[in-house]
Amino acid sequence: MSERTLEELARHVGGELRGDPGLTIRSAATLEEAVEGQISFLANPRYFRLMETTRASAVVVGEAQPLSVSQIVAPDPYYAFAQMVVLLHGHRQHLGTGISPRASVDPTATIGAETHIHDFATVSAGSRVGARCVLYPNVYVGPGVEVGDDCVLYAGVVIYDGCRLGNRVIVQANATVGEDGFGFATHRGVHHKIPHIGRVIIEDDVEIGAGSGIERGTLQDTVIGRGSKVGDLVAIGHGVRLGPGCLVVAQAGIAGSTTLGHHVVLAGQVGVAGHLKIGDMVAVGAKSGVNRSIPAGQRVFGYPAFEQRQSTAAYAAFKSLPQFRRRLIELEERVEQMEARLSAGAAETGGA
Amino acid sequence: MSERTLEELARHVGGELRGDPGLTIRSAATLEEAVEGQISFLANPRYFRLMETTRASAVVVGEAQPLSVSQIVAPDPYYAFAQMVVLLHGHRQHLGTGISPRASVDPTATIGAETHIHDFATVSAGSRVGARCVLYPNVYVGPGVEVGDDCVLYAGVVIYDGCRLGNRVIVQANATVGEDGFGFATHRGVHHKIPHIGRVIIEDDVEIGAGSGIERGTLQDTVIGRGSKVGDLVAIGHGVRLGPGCLVVAQAGIAGSTTLGHHVVLAGQVGVAGHLKIGDMVAVGAKSGVNRSIPAGQRVFGYPAFEQRQSTAAYAAFKSLPQFRRRLIELEERVEQMEARLSAGAAETGGA
Amino acid sequence: MSERTLEELARHVGGELRGDPGLTIRSAATLEEAVEGQISFLANPRYFRLMETTRASAVVVGEAQPLSVSQIVAPDPYYAFAQMVVLLHGHRQHLGTGISPRASVDPTATIGAETHIHDFATVSAGSRVGARCVLYPNVYVGPGVEVGDDCVLYAGVVIYDGCRLGNRVIVQANATVGEDGFGFATHRGVHHKIPHIGRVIIEDDVEIGAGSGIERGTLQDTVIGRGSKVGDLVAIGHGVRLGPGCLVVAQAGIAGSTTLGHHVVLAGQVGVAGHLKIGDMVAVGAKSGVNRSIPAGQRVFGYPAFEQRQSTAAYAAFKSLPQFRRRLIELEERVEQMEARLSAGAAETGGA
Repeated sequence: MSERTLEELARHVGGELRGDPGLTIRSAATLEEAVEGQISFLANPRYFRLMETTRASAVVVGEAQPLSVSQIVAPDPYYAFAQMVVLLHGHRQHLGTGISPRASVDPTATIGAETHIHDFATVSAGSRVGARCVLYPNVYVGPGVEVGDDCVLYAGVVIYDGCRLGNRVIVQANATVGEDGFGFATHRGVHHKIPHIGRVIIEDDVEIGAGSGIERGTLQDTVIGRGSKVGDLVAIGHGVRLGPGCLVVAQAGIAGSTTLGHHVVLAGQVGVAGHLKIGDMVAVGAKSGVNRSIPAGQRVFGYPAFEQRQSTAAYAAFKSLPQFRRRLIELEERVEQMEARLSAGAAETGGA
Repeated sequence: MSERTLEELARHVGGELRGDPGLTIRSAATLEEAVEGQISFLANPRYFRLMETTRASAVVVGEAQPLSVSQIVAPDPYYAFAQMVVLLHGHRQHLGTGISPRASVDPTATIGAETHIHDFATVSAGSRVGARCVLYPNVYVGPGVEVGDDCVLYAGVVIYDGCRLGNRVIVQANATVGEDGFGFATHRGVHHKIPHIGRVIIEDDVEIGAGSGIERGTLQDTVIGRGSKVGDLVAIGHGVRLGPGCLVVAQAGIAGSTTLGHHVVLAGQVGVAGHLKIGDMVAVGAKSGVNRSIPAGQRVFGYPAFEQRQSTAAYAAFKSLPQFRRRLIELEERVEQMEARLSAGAAETGGA
Repeated sequence: MSERTLEELARHVGGELRGDPGLTIRSAATLEEAVEGQISFLANPRYFRLMETTRASAVVVGEAQPLSVSQIVAPDPYYAFAQMVVLLHGHRQHLGTGISPRASVDPTATIGAETHIHDFATVSAGSRVGARCVLYPNVYVGPGVEVGDDCVLYAGVVIYDGCRLGNRVIVQANATVGEDGFGFATHRGVHHKIPHIGRVIIEDDVEIGAGSGIERGTLQDTVIGRGSKVGDLVAIGHGVRLGPGCLVVAQAGIAGSTTLGHHVVLAGQVGVAGHLKIGDMVAVGAKSGVNRSIPAGQRVFGYPAFEQRQSTAAYAAFKSLPQFRRRLIELEERVEQMEARLSAGAAETGGA
C-alpha cells in the first residue's frame, strides 16, 4: 500500500480534478464505508444518495456532481477507480520461495526463470512451466502440460495431462482443468467410458474461478478464449469453445460442444445445453436455461431462455396467472348465461 | 460408541420415559432401518406409519403415541434425538498427530496448544492458528491468516491470505475461503482485474461445506455470521454479509454485496442477485432466483421468486396454461358468434 | 496410439465394412474436424449434412449411406465408434511410480499389488487399497477406508473415514466423498451439528466427476449404485441412494434421503428435493426442479418438474402470456358490452 495525492491519482487515470490537488489518499473504499483519506467511486447513478453522505475524501465520477466532496471526473469512472486501486494497493504479492525442495518437479520438466514452486506442488514428466509463474502448495501439473509465462496457480489447482495454458493465466484454488468429460457410450444398459483425447487450451489473460471444472475434449479440444474470465464453481463441458473476452459468472454451466462467440456474458447459475452456437456479445440473464442457439447481440432471459423484453413481460404476467384463471372462469359463466339468454330470446321471438 | 439405558437417555435430554427404563440402547437409526437395541425418532407426523412397524427398541417423540414401543417424549424430539446420537456415537475423533514434520509450518507462524497439523498441510508466514485445531493433509493456510480455537479444516481446504476464522469453525474438504472475487473493470472490451483488498471473516461456530467457495471482498470484507451453516458447493460472492444463524443449502449462490439478516434460509440451488438486502428470518424455497430485496420474515419461492403462497398458486395454474389457451380461443369464438347473432338480431328487430 | 486397417476396425466391432479393407486409420475425430487417415461417426441423423462434406477416411454409421466415403455399418454406431477410440487411442496411461517415499502411508494401511501412490498422497490408519490402483498427488484416504481393485483417484480427491469404494471406481480431481452432511438440529435458534454415522458406499464401475461432493449418511449410508456415472460439481446429500446405471450430469444436486431407481438420468443442473422416490428409468430434463416422487419410466421437465409433454406445451404457451392477458381484457370488454346490450334489449322488450 502506498499513499498518493489526489493530483497524482487524477493524472494517473487522465481524469479531471475538482478539489484539493494536494489531498493525501491512502486507500480505496465503498461510498458507504469510506473514511477520511480514502477514495471511492460512483459508477451507477442509483447510488447517488450515498455520495451525498459519504465520508470519502474524494470520489471518482463520470460527470461532476454539485457536491462539496473532491471529485475526479473520468469518462469510465469504474475503470479509473480500478486503476487507482491497483496504484494504491497493488495486486497480491506472492512470496518468493524459488523451487521448494519439498515440491515434486520431474527431472524432465522445464521450469522458467523466477518461477516459484511451493511445497507439495507437483510438476510431472515432460511438462513446461514458463517464467515468473507461481505454483502454490498442492498444485498438480500433469505430464506434458504447457504453462506460459506469468501464470498463477493457487493452492489445490489440478491441470491434467497435455493441457495448455497461455501467458498471464490465473487459476484460483481447487479448480480443475482437463478432467475427463462426461462421455459414455451406453450399450445394453452399461455406460462405456470413452477416452478423451482432446485437451483443454486456455489462452492468454484468462482467469478461472475457485472450484471450477473445465473438461477436456472427447475428440476436439476445449478452448477458453483470450481474456475470458470464468467465475467460481463453473462447469464447462467437453469440447466447449469460448471466444475472447467472455464472462462466465459463478455456478454457470455449459454442456458439451457448445461454442460461444466473443464477449458473451453468462450470468450466475446459467445453464447452456450442448451443441449450440451462442453468438458474439450475447448476454444471458441470471439462472436462465438456454436450450437453443442464440444470434449475436441478443439478450435473453428465462427458463427456457428467450428474448429478454418478451420474457420479462411474460414473467411479470405469470404472477397474475391464478387471477387470469378466475377471470377466465367468470367469463365462461357470463358467456354461458348470455348464450342461454340469447337462445331463450331466440325461442321466444322464434329467431334462429 | 458407548451403550446407555433408556433411563440414562431420557434423563440426558430431560424427556419423559414411557417404557422399560433398563432397556439397553446401543446406537441410533431411522425408523425404517432400526433393529433391536437401537433408538429412533418421529419428528414429522407424516412418517407415523413407520412408527407402527419399526423394530427400534425405543422412539423419541414429541407427543406420546398409543403404541407398545418404548418412547421418550420430548418437546423438540429431533433435537433430543440429536443429543442422544452425540451421546451414543460422539462426534468424529481426530487422530492425534501433533505437528507433522512433513507439514510446512513457517517459522513466523504461531500454532496453539494441542493443535494437530497433518502431513502436507501448509501454514504460511505470519499466520496464527489457535489451540486444539486440526488441519488435515493438503490444507493451505495463507500468509497472515488467523484461525481461532477448536477449528477443523478438512483435507484440501484453502484459506487465502489475511482471512479470519473464529472459534469452532469447521470447513469441509476442498472448500476455498478468500479467493479473489469476480471483479473486473471492462474497458474497451478488455476485462481489467481489480485487486481484492477485502478479506473473508468467518465468525464463531460456522460450518462451510465441501467444495464451496467464499470470495474475499473487493473493498469491504465478506462476512459469514456466527453460527451460520453453509452447505456443499455453495458460491458466496465478494462483499456478501450473512447475519448469524443463516442456513445456506448445497449449490446455492449469493452474488456480490448482498446482505442477509439473521436466520435466513436459502434452500438448495437458490440464486440471489447482487446488491440486495434479504431480511431477517427470510426463507427462500429450493432453486428460486431472488432478484429483489425481501422484507424480514417473508417466505418466497420461484424464478423469479415472489411471495410463496402466491407463487405456489401461480405454478399450480401454470400446468393448465395450454388448456387456458384453448378455453380462451373457444371463448373468443363464442363471443364472436354471439356478437354476430346480436348484430343480426339488432338488424332484424331494428335495434341498436 | 496405434494405427489399424479399416478391416481390423470393422472386425473389432463386428461391423459390416463398405469400402477399402486395407485403408489405414490412425486416429478418431469428429465429422467436422477429421482429416485423411481418421475415422468418424454418424449417430444422430441431424448431422447427416456433415457426412457429405467430411474429409474422414471412414465413418461408422447405423445404416449404410449412399455416399462414396468408406463406412462401417454397426447397429449401435456410437458404441462401435467408442470401441474403436479405445483401440486406436487407449485409455489414459498412468505413470508407474510405485509407492512414493514422499507419500504418507500409515503402517497399518494395506496396499494391494501394483498400486501406485504418488507424492503427497495420504493413506490413513486402518485403510485398505486394492491392487492396480492409482492415487495421484494430494489424494487423501481417511482412516478405515476401503478401496477396491483397479481404482483411480485423481489429484486432490478426498475420501473421508470409513467410506467404501468398489472395483474400477474412478474419482476425478478435487472431488470429495464422505464429508459430513448438512444435518443440524435447530433448537432455540442454534443449529446443533448431528454426528453423521453413515458412510458413503460406492459400488463397482462408478465414476465421480471433478469437484463433486457426496455426503456421508446421517444414520444410513449414502449409496452410489453399480455402474452409475456422476458428473462434475454434483452435490449428493446424506443418505441418498442411487440404483445401478444412473447418469447424473454436471451441477445436478440431490437432497438428503432421496432414492433413485436404476438407469435414472438427471440432466445438468437438475435439483431433486429430499425424501423422494424417483423410479427406474426416469429421465429429468436439464435444470428441472423435482419436488415430488416420480413413477418409473416417466420423463419430466420444468420448475417444478412435471410430465415432459405437458410441461413442454405449458412452457411454449408461457411465451404468449402477455398476449393472453390482452385477449382476456379484450374479451371482458366485449362481454360487458354485450351484456349491456342484452340488458338494454331486455328492458326494451320487457324481457327478463
